Amino acid sequence: MTGGTPVIPPDVVRCAYLDLVVSDLAAARRFYVDLLGLHVTAEDESAIHLRCFEEFIHHNLVLRQGPVPAVAAFAFRVRTPEDVDRAEAWYRERGCRTERRPGGFVRGVGDAVRVQDPLGFPYEFFHQVEHVERLTRRYDLYSAGELVRLDHFNQVTPDVPRGRAYLEDLGFRVSEDIKDAAGTTYAVWMHRKQTVHDAALTGGNGPRMHHLAFATHEKHDIIQICDKMGALRISDRIERGPGRHGVSNAFYLYILDPDGHRVEIYTQDYYTGDPDNPVVTWDVHDNQRRDWWGNPVVPSWYTEASLVLDLDGNPQPVLERSDPSELAVTVGADGFSYTRAPGQGGFKLGHQV
Amino acid sequence: MTGGTPVIPPDVVRCAYLDLVVSDLAAARRFYVDLLGLHVTAEDESAIHLRCFEEFIHHNLVLRQGPVPAVAAFAFRVRTPEDVDRAEAWYRERGCRTERRPGGFVRGVGDAVRVQDPLGFPYEFFHQVEHVERLTRRYDLYSAGELVRLDHFNQVTPDVPRGRAYLEDLGFRVSEDIKDAAGTTYAVWMHRKQTVHDAALTGGNGPRMHHLAFATHEKHDIIQICDKMGALRISDRIERGPGRHGVSNAFYLYILDPDGHRVEIYTQDYYTGDPDNPVVTWDVHDNQRRDWWGNPVVPSWYTEASLVLDLDGNPQPVLERSDPSELAVTVGADGFSYTRAPGQGGFKLGHQV
Amino acid sequence: MTGGTPVIPPDVVRCAYLDLVVSDLAAARRFYVDLLGLHVTAEDESAIHLRCFEEFIHHNLVLRQGPVPAVAAFAFRVRTPEDVDRAEAWYRERGCRTERRPGGFVRGVGDAVRVQDPLGFPYEFFHQVEHVERLTRRYDLYSAGELVRLDHFNQVTPDVPRGRAYLEDLGFRVSEDIKDAAGTTYAVWMHRKQTVHDAALTGGNGPRMHHLAFATHEKHDIIQICDKMGALRISDRIERGPGRHGVSNAFYLYILDPDGHRVEIYTQDYYTGDPDNPVVTWDVHDNQRRDWWGNPVVPSWYTEASLVLDLDGNPQPVLERSDPSELAVTVGADGFSYTRAPGQGGFKLGHQV
Amino acid sequence: MTGGTPVIPPDVVRCAYLDLVVSDLAAARRFYVDLLGLHVTAEDESAIHLRCFEEFIHHNLVLRQGPVPAVAAFAFRVRTPEDVDRAEAWYRERGCRTERRPGGFVRGVGDAVRVQDPLGFPYEFFHQVEHVERLTRRYDLYSAGELVRLDHFNQVTPDVPRGRAYLEDLGFRVSEDIKDAAGTTYAVWMHRKQTVHDAALTGGNGPRMHHLAFATHEKHDIIQICDKMGALRISDRIERGPGRHGVSNAFYLYILDPDGHRVEIYTQDYYTGDPDNPVVTWDVHDNQRRDWWGNPVVPSWYTEASLVLDLDGNPQPVLERSDPSELAVTVGADGFSYTRAPGQGGFKLGHQV
Repeated sequence: MTGGTPVIPPDVVRCAYLDLVVSDLAAARRFYVDLLGLHVTAEDESAIHLRCFEEFIHHNLVLRQGPVPAVAAFAFRVRTPEDVDRAEAWYRERGCRTERRPGGFVRGVGDAVRVQDPLGFPYEFFHQVEHVERLTRRYDLYSAGELVRLDHFNQVTPDVPRGRAYLEDLGFRVSEDIKDAAGTTYAVWMHRKQTVHDAALTGGNGPRMHHLAFATHEKHDIIQICDKMGALRISDRIERGPGRHGVSNAFYLYILDPDGHRVEIYTQDYYTGDPDNPVVTWDVHDNQRRDWWGNPVVPSWYTEASLVLDLDGNPQPVLERSDPSELAVTVGADGFSYTRAPGQGGFKLGHQV
Repeated sequence: MTGGTPVIPPDVVRCAYLDLVVSDLAAARRFYVDLLGLHVTAEDESAIHLRCFEEFIHHNLVLRQGPVPAVAAFAFRVRTPEDVDRAEAWYRERGCRTERRPGGFVRGVGDAVRVQDPLGFPYEFFHQVEHVERLTRRYDLYSAGELVRLDHFNQVTPDVPRGRAYLEDLGFRVSEDIKDAAGTTYAVWMHRKQTVHDAALTGGNGPRMHHLAFATHEKHDIIQICDKMGALRISDRIERGPGRHGVSNAFYLYILDPDGHRVEIYTQDYYTGDPDNPVVTWDVHDNQRRDWWGNPVVPSWYTEASLVLDLDGNPQPVLERSDPSELAVTVGADGFSYTRAPGQGGFKLGHQV
Repeated sequence: MTGGTPVIPPDVVRCAYLDLVVSDLAAARRFYVDLLGLHVTAEDESAIHLRCFEEFIHHNLVLRQGPVPAVAAFAFRVRTPEDVDRAEAWYRERGCRTERRPGGFVRGVGDAVRVQDPLGFPYEFFHQVEHVERLTRRYDLYSAGELVRLDHFNQVTPDVPRGRAYLEDLGFRVSEDIKDAAGTTYAVWMHRKQTVHDAALTGGNGPRMHHLAFATHEKHDIIQICDKMGALRISDRIERGPGRHGVSNAFYLYILDPDGHRVEIYTQDYYTGDPDNPVVTWDVHDNQRRDWWGNPVVPSWYTEASLVLDLDGNPQPVLERSDPSELAVTVGADGFSYTRAPGQGGFKLGHQV
Repeated sequence: MTGGTPVIPPDVVRCAYLDLVVSDLAAARRFYVDLLGLHVTAEDESAIHLRCFEEFIHHNLVLRQGPVPAVAAFAFRVRTPEDVDRAEAWYRERGCRTERRPGGFVRGVGDAVRVQDPLGFPYEFFHQVEHVERLTRRYDLYSAGELVRLDHFNQVTPDVPRGRAYLEDLGFRVSEDIKDAAGTTYAVWMHRKQTVHDAALTGGNGPRMHHLAFATHEKHDIIQICDKMGALRISDRIERGPGRHGVSNAFYLYILDPDGHRVEIYTQDYYTGDPDNPVVTWDVHDNQRRDWWGNPVVPSWYTEASLVLDLDGNPQPVLERSDPSELAVTVGADGFSYTRAPGQGGFKLGHQV
């Protein structure tokens, strides 16, 4: 409360765009435009604004040339102009640093507030945005492997329960999580729009960005992206997948951009819009939680992530996770995972390493 | 207003199930279960409760044996138990007949109100519902052509603008519509969940139900349903499609159940959750509005529809549309439609008849 | 026989390329290259040589500017250089005009013979051909809707049984045909490679070319071609489909190039390589023979076709079919077709007109 | 030669069926029928005869209960009855043991010869076979993940060049192979039908069967098989994949039956029917040869394989490969593999282990 008036959180509509610093803008353009086919809304010497095929707001990704590859902001759209005020007040009440810019932080976006959130992430909230041509029916521009929507952000943070409580206060709802019998939470998926998530929290050293995710229409689109990376002889930039997630049930792929920023390509999760949408909790030792087919998660997927910037543009220091790590408890000598239900046998431990 | 207290509409979450009277329950079961693969939650001699693959509420379709094939209720889920009260008050204030049943109208659903709405349709609003196993990851039960979600209802009504105003009051938002230069509205698509529609209004003699729609994951699933109907030698029950809609951009198919109730199979429309989601208005003479490939709409698709029942279970009388009909203005001798943008030529009139 | 030596037919490997005259080379290029994505092997002011994604010979289609849109040659590859001699001898023995060119008729192809066959079609047989890069793994060049192989030619001829006997003598084998109870043959599908056909004969006024067919990998590729034609506002050039053939079981689409030459896009027929591969005979009145879903065949599909040239480059005169036409016996007032097996009911006649 | 008459090899049409001994017929039935959906042509207490969706001969797989899980015969169809005689003579001339049974070795197959071939494999050649219903258009029986054709056998043998020379003598043609700069051949793919292979030889301790492969129509079918195995909690039986092969260009998956017999699911290789079809040779150090996306090959895939039986039903002794093993030269401390073309960097070695 502030002077008796309840501070209500902003009505967040969805994750909307990522403001991303890259070390080589031309190389990043080859990756996001030439390889992945994102559509250029605007570009100049210092930045490129990109959008997905079905997007009508100005961009879903801003690539900005900079000295340190890192996330400058995770930007969320809010329902009304007043929700920007609410966001500012809500974070200020929590003692967070905020910066309001009526003219926006990036081209195409108006009045916005950026905050350094309780977990150390730079979040932006905006409503005003330039509308651009929605390419939905422009099949003359539709490539094999077309990315049609921004789907979600995935963030690494040491204390997942703390992050979850904060985002629930902000109005996010949990769709799925990974825990163990001792009560440790390893990861949580939280949404505002009616999909499995707008933001996921993965336990680890942070604050860092684990990945940014785009959606395709069908599964063959994801296979085509792999095939194209093979043809371009950059298959070493395919980090993990393709596969079917246990969590979210989506078909997925993880690839790495020239700076090592991780991009997920993702399709066919499920509707979560009902108020009592059932939460799915996975046992960290269930070998199908991360890959429904039991294929191993490469260690780099657990350990590597992108830096995030503070509001001055400096990298946030990375804090170590003190809870057990999912990597440690599931892979290698100390790991214990099962594929089949208890009593059924069928362990696939050897496959994990 | 009632005594100075504003009567606010219920917070409708989504279209949730259809209560459908069929003349031969065994024949309907062959269609919806054996052919289409809907999953049986419950059944007895008089009714079958069916759900889609990714549904967690008790059912999306109730088939009930009855003397006159007709829709008994279009049922919508609301956000809270109090929203049922709000629905009741909101319709009463409009002078509509309502019936409240704390124990629900059908198995698996609790406290609900049914109303005879201003357009003559039987609408139900409920919140309490039995949760059942969500089959999302049960790929051992996944058939070729699997129906994964209930997508929408499509209703025929003579006066589309009147219906649109009423549903906007109720909180629905328009995603797309079809008009002509003279201002006639032929159809409108309206949503609560973040898809193109929960309910569409098609201009014609009504109140009648035009169709009920289920979603598949991918386009090949819809092709498989056609192939299966061919194999079963019931291809005469394929009425229209498959094709790509102009409106909604979805890939579609229309088939007819044994009573002639029309079912659409539908996939890959687009996200509409932003508050300023752009409305798409189509010219009724644009030959790609109903089928993006310009394939003709069969006349029966414009003229045939299912009766709806009043709250006593009697068929509602069907009122004639006085506005021009889409069939008359687009098909045949008097029709005038174009495929290409003005000045480009390329009419496809001959294809229409 | 010629002087006691048996004249054996050439060992035909497959249909290999079509030599096609177009009236506007630039417009044809927009259709075959910009729209359909065929790959240019060579081009100059008068001709364009195109190949499919998985082809390793110089081309599958030659577009040549000329005064009369028509087929200059249906070209087949034979197994050995000597098979070109055999082809020449085999047709000469039948009294057909032949022309041998050791340097080939078109760029990229060596020693070849062209003949005016007993049905009036210009056939070419060659073995020597320039190899080019097979793009099979070049997924960086793979478009949505990619055409991966030339599949077959379809030819219109008045007397189908006569044509069938001739092609069987030449070594082709029948996979499927359409007949009626009175013994009339309406169409026949014949192959050398292990698919349903390299050449089909459709009964009608001829000699004319009914269509040229390319294969895609999957069904969604064909849907994308339709979607793209919609986006380009040339949906009026979609003549028929997409649909599932009864005959061949392939998923299909028919579109028209700027000169009205018909192109089929085709995928997923079946293996026919066994010597006793079962022949499938369809009743002309079976409403699912041409479209497994019972969708109507537009009349133009039966009546329109491309001229073919003689060896001097003049259009062959078109002879009328005297047998009953498939169009007349299946569509309209005199037509009688069924969808369901005898005794099951379910006629779909009204849908046909 | 035998007395001046040249012994010509049989005209082999294709790989046709595998005669496979399993230790638990009921468990094998659950795998091949309940999980994979193969269609039962015939079964009794000791054997099950299964066929693919588009097959018209009696079976593609015989499962027989027996004491030692092993391959009893790799059976190939020949073009004529006389080709069975030719096969018998051809192997006898090479000093191979043969057994002729005019009534056939298994139900549904007539006159056949089985041989113990120069590499120690039990090969069968037959022409006469019972025709059964080809289910091609029976989409009412079409499951998600349907297996439509038997595609190939893959055999492990110590001396690949020797095996290749023998199969070339028998009339097989090479489509692709894997070699190194020193001239060692690691594997070779050979075909009779117009696909990449009917039989592949993989270098290793043998004679053993590496795997049996079935084809699906599209890629999503293979993903569904993985998803179903996940749902049944037998993901530990997914050994490798899914992925895109470099060799063959097919989309693939390897799974293990209850006895450890390896089954590949495979789709979309390419046409090889031309006499000069280009042979593709891969460098064993090219990290994309086995998986175009550079995903690692699990060691078990290189080391595990099924025993094969001699004509008395006893397991053949397994001889060690003396050439370098592909596993040793590509995986682990001594391995050296590259993803990018020389000079481009981009090694993916760490991913391999």
